[in-house]
Amino acid sequence: MDKIKRNERLGALTKILTDTPNRIHTLSEFCELFGSAKSTISEDIDLISASFERFDLGRVETVAGAAGGVRYRAIPSPKKIRRVLNDVSERLSEPGRMLPGGFLYTSDITAEGDIAQQMGEILASQYYDRQPHFVLTMETKGIPIALMTARMLDVPLVIARRDSRAYEGSAVKINYIAGGGSERIETMALARRAVQPGQRALIIDDFMKGGGTLQGMVDLMKEFLAEVVGVGVMIATAAPQAKLVSGAKSLLILEGFDSATGRAIVHPSPEYTEM
Amino acid sequence: MDKIKRNERLGALTKILTDTPNRIHTLSEFCELFGSAKSTISEDIDLISASFERFDLGRVETVAGAAGGVRYRAIPSPKKIRRVLNDVSERLSEPGRMLPGGFLYTSDITAEGDIAQQMGEILASQYYDRQPHFVLTMETKGIPIALMTARMLDVPLVIARRDSRAYEGSAVKINYIAGGGSERIETMALARRAVQPGQRALIIDDFMKGGGTLQGMVDLMKEFLAEVVGVGVMIATAAPQAKLVSGAKSLLILEGFDSATGRAIVHPSPEYTEM
Repeated sequence: MDKIKRNERLGALTKILTDTPNRIHTLSEFCELFGSAKSTISEDIDLISASFERFDLGRVETVAGAAGGVRYRAIPSPKKIRRVLNDVSERLSEPGRMLPGGFLYTSDITAEGDIAQQMGEILASQYYDRQPHFVLTMETKGIPIALMTARMLDVPLVIARRDSRAYEGSAVKINYIAGGGSERIETMALARRAVQPGQRALIIDDFMKGGGTLQGMVDLMKEFLAEVVGVGVMIATAAPQAKLVSGAKSLLILEGFDSATGRAIVHPSPEYTEM
Repeated sequence: MDKIKRNERLGALTKILTDTPNRIHTLSEFCELFGSAKSTISEDIDLISASFERFDLGRVETVAGAAGGVRYRAIPSPKKIRRVLNDVSERLSEPGRMLPGGFLYTSDITAEGDIAQQMGEILASQYYDRQPHFVLTMETKGIPIALMTARMLDVPLVIARRDSRAYEGSAVKINYIAGGGSERIETMALARRAVQPGQRALIIDDFMKGGGTLQGMVDLMKEFLAEVVGVGVMIATAAPQAKLVSGAKSLLILEGFDSATGRAIVHPSPEYTEM
């Protein structure tokens, strides 16, 4: 193949790296693709890395060792995290989002690809070191955020269902306490083949009130002999303070509603404002 | 701000464009960010555009006119579409995917971020000219693919539910025939506020057998006075040939199962192999 000039390589190289977040590419792969020497590709990587750092676009990193190479990770800076979480808090505080029963309407926001991706980037960046094998969520509303978290970690998404389905084969089904003050017993099902014993699970959902659904997912993982390495949600309610699940991290806190305006009072979790 | 050199701009420019598929950015936006002249940014865009074309990475296009600028669209070439669809067909034909009742296990594949994105890129590329305002899907299994399709089109995803939920507010609920030979009556619900009259809907799902669920979504859109501009699925069964919904496009065809090996017989739709 013809030798490709740097100006023609940088765009393609950036796209290939960012299309496969958290995946390690060898320099040889790019040498072959572009007909360039390793030292040349290394310089390209340094240029992209510097450009990403300067404009807060995530990290392009060189990984040393036998299985080494270069990878992109969508790690936002503390400043970007604050900006994103403040923006989403503002949108969630728009008038008209309070529903009968004291519920907050979030379905439009959680299903926006942009927002789901930004939430996924922030959530994933908290758990790289835990090296989950997959992300687990419970249908339905948390799926977009969980999918994007899984994509950023380069692991599959596993979706627990309210009931087992013929097109998912034999399933493990558990009962759990829905929480949120209702104490209702609900069921949760997951295809047997979806998880292998000993795998590490990262549990992600959009919303936590009592924490019952999240604890249900933790219990479900016990049935599969899988290890839960983290529990992350987009929004947690301030009350009740004691959740049925322990150790869950939330990006945003829903304090309640302003009774005069009917607006939700939402703000980023303290750990993200104090960074 | 300091003037940024081309080598340092190309990575950031590529990332910003590909992070916001189908969204038009003005050249002025980049001039300001990089402290460069419009002609310089134009040359950058041309370099990225050529690099993307050469390596089949989608299109970076200049859009003329008052609302013009530059945008990235994830339009795969016919060759890339064939390769992606052949790869997915192969995976779906792996042994062990046939379930009791003649169902095909696909949940692991449809929930892989990579695959969902590739399916989303192909599906979106069929509907740019229809300019949908949103993508509609029915929970649960189609959500990852529908989300990625919506993200590629830069429109929101709207998720119909099997039942209305307190946290989605007042809803429109319809009955529909599930199809697939069962003639079961099912319900489908969607929050009133999710769709505005006159909007254009693109309906996306992962699987079509009888087409009943898809026709249900078409009927649901009538209730909202929305226009359906397309119906696309990842996999359609060859039988029954007559579907309850008309005009649906499918990327893959499930012919059935090889009774000797228990493997699914799956191939790309003819319109994608003959391109």
